[in-house]
Amino acid sequence: MPMPKSIKLFYFDFHGGRGETARLALSIGGVPFADERVKGADWPMLKPSMPFGELPVLEVDGQRISQSNAINRYVGQLTGLYPDDRWQAAQCDEVCCAVEALNDALGPSFSLKGDEQKRERERLLAGSIPRCLKGLDSLLAQRGGEWFASNRLTIADLKVIEITGMLSSGRLDHIPADIVERTAPALAAHRTRVLAHPGVRAYYARFDL
Amino acid sequence: MPMPKSIKLFYFDFHGGRGETARLALSIGGVPFADERVKGADWPMLKPSMPFGELPVLEVDGQRISQSNAINRYVGQLTGLYPDDRWQAAQCDEVCCAVEALNDALGPSFSLKGDEQKRERERLLAGSIPRCLKGLDSLLAQRGGEWFASNRLTIADLKVIEITGMLSSGRLDHIPADIVERTAPALAAHRTRVLAHPGVRAYYARFDL
Repeated sequence: MPMPKSIKLFYFDFHGGRGETARLALSIGGVPFADERVKGADWPMLKPSMPFGELPVLEVDGQRISQSNAINRYVGQLTGLYPDDRWQAAQCDEVCCAVEALNDALGPSFSLKGDEQKRERERLLAGSIPRCLKGLDSLLAQRGGEWFASNRLTIADLKVIEITGMLSSGRLDHIPADIVERTAPALAAHRTRVLAHPGVRAYYARFDL
Repeated sequence: MPMPKSIKLFYFDFHGGRGETARLALSIGGVPFADERVKGADWPMLKPSMPFGELPVLEVDGQRISQSNAINRYVGQLTGLYPDDRWQAAQCDEVCCAVEALNDALGPSFSLKGDEQKRERERLLAGSIPRCLKGLDSLLAQRGGEWFASNRLTIADLKVIEITGMLSSGRLDHIPADIVERTAPALAAHRTRVLAHPGVRAYYARFDL
């Protein structure tokens, strides 16, 4: 796959979220890119120029694509973090899609307040969240217990820590910070394993976290 | 890509929805598959054996994957309905992901009733629905106005008619059947174009619709 001349990744200015998998993958793969961290104040002006008015967006030699998993797959191929084998690629995609569906399910709860947010988050705790975590837990076990595809680090693992990190952060009101540990202990161990990967450690070591 | 010996697609027993893209792609590509249409009464027994307890699920030589876009991409590669070029593949993925995000946004409204459903569907009509339709409309225009990737029919086009068909069906309470025509006329024309494709016509001609 020929290496593009210029890669820019537009995402919001925080660690985590839908842009984190591509930032991590590009860094692990040693592919230079402009990490365009959009500040809240600049977003309203930028929003209309972005596909679907959303981030993350990847700009490659001047052309843009949106949608986190489309970006992740492209970047995964560029960085060797995506399976070559078609079936293992499908297994990698399955995991990325399942995590994104949980992102989508969680999304509306962020704009709710007070009791409405509490009710919605409790609904998620009784449905989408355990369903996704237990489903991922089963897939991980079936695939050897360490990595989600190809027996090595791929974008699927990076995508999974995107969500297990958010759920375990203690920053989501009404979501207990031990939800991953309690629902799917193997995913908590998977998160520790991925964070210990030399490429992931090197990425986060650059920041004052 | 070597052709599997046995392919089964498990999905619910209706035309449309998240399983339709794979059914269409396999049929258009002339790839034999067992179209396992799960009846409502059989689903509770089958559900625990399916990844994430959800459909569609694709079974290839005895191994299963879930998540519609993971299935679509695999099936698209098998049937020649997925771009070979990496960037056009990313454009194809972008469209599939955007449609799936709208499926995810619409999902919770199906289990609501009465005024609650009305409020939720009105919220979608003011947000996710036009954002997705207009975003797709722009992408289609940028890509020549006829097809979403590679200037030919791909799984992206099949995925788009999955949602434009549902939104235009008149079967969703509080969603006006002319919403696609009114919000993104080029997508209504795209739907007509895809339905006129010989492979798509041949597929639907087999059913008494």
